[in-house]
Amino acid sequence: LYASYTSEHQHLRYNPLRDSWVLVSAHRMKRPWAGQVEKPAEEHVPRYDPCNPLCPGNTRANGEVNPHYDSTFVFENDFPALQPDAPDPGPHQHPLFQSKAARGVCKVMCFHPWSDVTLPLMKKEEVVKVIDKWAELVEELGATYPWVQIFENKGAMMGCSNPHPHCQVWASNFLPNEPALSDRCQRAYYQKHGEPLLLEYAKQEAEKKERVVVESSDWLAVVPYWATWPYQTLLLPRRHVLRISDLTKDEREDLADIMKRLLTKYDNLFEVSFPYSMGWHGAPTGPYLEGDNSHWQLHAHYYPPLLRSALVKKFMVGYEMLALEQRDLTPEQVISTTWLCEIRLLDLSDMRFDVRSY
Amino acid sequence: LYASYTSEHQHLRYNPLRDSWVLVSAHRMKRPWAGQVEKPAEEHVPRYDPCNPLCPGNTRANGEVNPHYDSTFVFENDFPALQPDAPDPGPHQHPLFQSKAARGVCKVMCFHPWSDVTLPLMKKEEVVKVIDKWAELVEELGATYPWVQIFENKGAMMGCSNPHPHCQVWASNFLPNEPALSDRCQRAYYQKHGEPLLLEYAKQEAEKKERVVVESSDWLAVVPYWATWPYQTLLLPRRHVLRISDLTKDEREDLADIMKRLLTKYDNLFEVSFPYSMGWHGAPTGPYLEGDNSHWQLHAHYYPPLLRSALVKKFMVGYEMLALEQRDLTPEQVISTTWLCEIRLLDLSDMRFDVRSY
Ligand SMILES: O=P(O)(O)O[C@H]1O[C@H](CO)[C@@H](O)[C@H](O)[C@H]1O
Ligand SMILES: O=P(O)(O)O[C@H]1O[C@H](CO)[C@@H](O)[C@H](O)[C@H]1O
Repeated sequence: LYASYTSEHQHLRYNPLRDSWVLVSAHRMKRPWAGQVEKPAEEHVPRYDPCNPLCPGNTRANGEVNPHYDSTFVFENDFPALQPDAPDPGPHQHPLFQSKAARGVCKVMCFHPWSDVTLPLMKKEEVVKVIDKWAELVEELGATYPWVQIFENKGAMMGCSNPHPHCQVWASNFLPNEPALSDRCQRAYYQKHGEPLLLEYAKQEAEKKERVVVESSDWLAVVPYWATWPYQTLLLPRRHVLRISDLTKDEREDLADIMKRLLTKYDNLFEVSFPYSMGWHGAPTGPYLEGDNSHWQLHAHYYPPLLRSALVKKFMVGYEMLALEQRDLTPEQVISTTWLCEIRLLDLSDMRFDVRSY
Repeated sequence: LYASYTSEHQHLRYNPLRDSWVLVSAHRMKRPWAGQVEKPAEEHVPRYDPCNPLCPGNTRANGEVNPHYDSTFVFENDFPALQPDAPDPGPHQHPLFQSKAARGVCKVMCFHPWSDVTLPLMKKEEVVKVIDKWAELVEELGATYPWVQIFENKGAMMGCSNPHPHCQVWASNFLPNEPALSDRCQRAYYQKHGEPLLLEYAKQEAEKKERVVVESSDWLAVVPYWATWPYQTLLLPRRHVLRISDLTKDEREDLADIMKRLLTKYDNLFEVSFPYSMGWHGAPTGPYLEGDNSHWQLHAHYYPPLLRSALVKKFMVGYEMLALEQRDLTPEQVISTTWLCEIRLLDLSDMRFDVRSY
C-alpha cells in the first residue's frame, strides 16, 4: 500500500542529514525529453599520454616532474583554491558584508599509473592502496585542519578535465557548510534518540532491503530514502566508525570490494563509464579531535548526474535552485526497475567493463 | 587596501539570506581549462515552428490546441511535478523515513507569440505585460497556496527544452527549502536590526557602487557580495515591497526597463543569448497573508552557469556539493573587469542583440 502510494503520488521526503525536504514526483519520467543531450565521452584514453600532467614521469604546469609512480601518487594542486597563508580580513564588519580568512591546502591524488583505468577496473589490492592513502591523508592533514574533504569528480560532465583516475583532497581551517549542517543534524539526532543517526539508518535499510544496491559483511550501499539525484547512493559501514582512518584492515578490504561492485553497477547501468562526484564525510578533525564525536558515522556520498541514459542528465535548475530539489522517479523505482534488471546482466556477464583492463 | 586583499587572497564570504558561506578564490581563473566545452546553442530559431507545442495555434501533448495568443499565454504544465490532489501519506513515521503530502499546481507561461525573441529583445510594453501576468498569478494562486515560485530556465544548458520564450509558475501547499531558509534569515535580521535585510543591503550597495550592474530610480541589480555563480545577480526594488503583486504601475515599467538592460548586458558579455535560471522570491502567501511579513523584501535571483566564455561553464561539483561553494573570481572583479568593458561596447553599439527582432 505504502509503496503504491509513493510510486503514484508526488510527495515530500525528509533528509535528516540536511534538515531539508525533497520533492519526489514519480510520474515525471513520462515526460518526453527534447532538451540537451550531452556529448559522448572520449572513447579511447591511452594508457600513457606524454602530454598528460598526471602520468608518471611527465612534467606538470609548475615545472615539477612526476616520479615514475606505480601505485597512488599525491601532489599539491598547481592551482589551489585554498592556500596555507591567507591573511585575516580584519574585524568591524557590517553584518551584510562579512568575510573570514580561508586557509588550507589542496592536494591531487592519482589512483593508478595508468590513464585507462577507473576504480571499478582496478584490482582489489590497488583499490585498498587508494583507501590506505585516503586514511593517511586524513590523519596527516586532520592533525591540524578541522576538515579534510576527499572528493572525486569523475567524467567531463562533472567538471573533470583529466581522464587519468584521480581524486582531490582539500583541507581547510573551517568546517564547510555541508559538514557543518551534517554535524548539527547528527548531533541533534544523537541527543534525542541516544544513537548515531546513520547507524540506525543502516540497520533499518538492511532490514527493509527496499533501497539496497550492494552489501557486504561490513558495508552497505543504498539509494537513500531522501536521495535527490536519480542514482544517488550512500555508502555506509555497519559498525560505528568515526573516520576513514579508523577502518580496520578487513574493513578496508571489504570497502575496496564493495566500491568495485557499486561502481561496476553504475558503469553497467547505461553501459558507460559512469560520471559522478563522490566524497567522504567523517567526524571533523584538528581541534575537534579533542571533543566527543559519537554522533558521527563515516559515510560516502555518490552524486551522479545522469537521469535517462548515458547522455541525458537530470538538470537541477530553476525550481531546484530557487525552491526545492525535485526528482522524477522514486528511490525504490531505481532499485526495483533499473538496478534489478541490471543485476541480472551482471550475473550473466560478470563485470563487463572489467575485461578492458586486465 | 581591502579591495586588494579580496582580489589577492582566498577568503570566505557570508550569505545572510542562506546563513552559509562561499569560498572566494580570485586566483583560480589563472588555471588553464582542458575540460568540457558546451555545444553552441542552436543558431536559428524560426519565429513560428508548426511542431513547437508552445507556439500559437499549435496542438500540445494532451491534445489541447493553443489559442492564437498575441501577448502572454498561460496553461497547465502537461507533465506537472505537483498536482492538486495527492493523498496524505499518513502519520506514525520513523524519524529517518518521514514523508509529507505535496500538493500544488504547475503552470507554463509563454512571454510572447514569437519563438525567436527573448525578454531583452522584446519591447518594453511587452515585458510589462509579462510582469503584470506574474503579479496576477501570484495573487490568484497565492490566495490559497503558501508559495508561488515563478522561475525561468533559459537555454539548453539550464535544462530548458524549448526555445520559445517562457517561464514556469509552480504553486505548492508547503514553503520549499529555499524560501523557508530565506524567511528565517530575513526574520532574524529584522528582529535584531529593526529593518528589512534586503532594504538595508540595497542602500549599502547603492552607496558603495562596487557591485552594481544596472540601476534605475526604482530598482537595483548587483552581483551580490556573497554570489556563488560567477555572474550571479540580485535584482531589488529600492522601496520596501513584499510581493510582485504590490508593485505600482511605475515600478513595473521601470522593472521592464531594468530587466531589458540587465539581460542585454548578459547577452553582450559573451555575445550569446545568455543561459540562466532566474526566479522571484517575495513574502509567502496563502495562510501567511494574515501574518506580519515586514521582514520580507521582494527580489529576483539570476543564476547563470557560464564562467569563461559562451561555451565554458562553472562546474558546481565535488567540493561544492560535498563541502562549500567555491568561486574563481570575486564579485568586484566581475564588475571592474568584465562588465566595465562591456558597458563601453554597449555605449558604442547600443543593444546589439536588439537589432535581430525589430
Ligand atoms: O519542467 P521542465 O522544463 O520540463 O524541466 C526543467 O525544469 C525543472 C524545474 O526546475 C527541472 O526539474 C528539470 O530537471 C528541468 O529539465
Ligand atoms: O579542481 P578542478 O578539477 O580543476 O575543478 C573542478 O573541481 C572543483 C572542485 O569541486 C570545482 O570548483 C571546479 O568548478 C571543477 O571544474
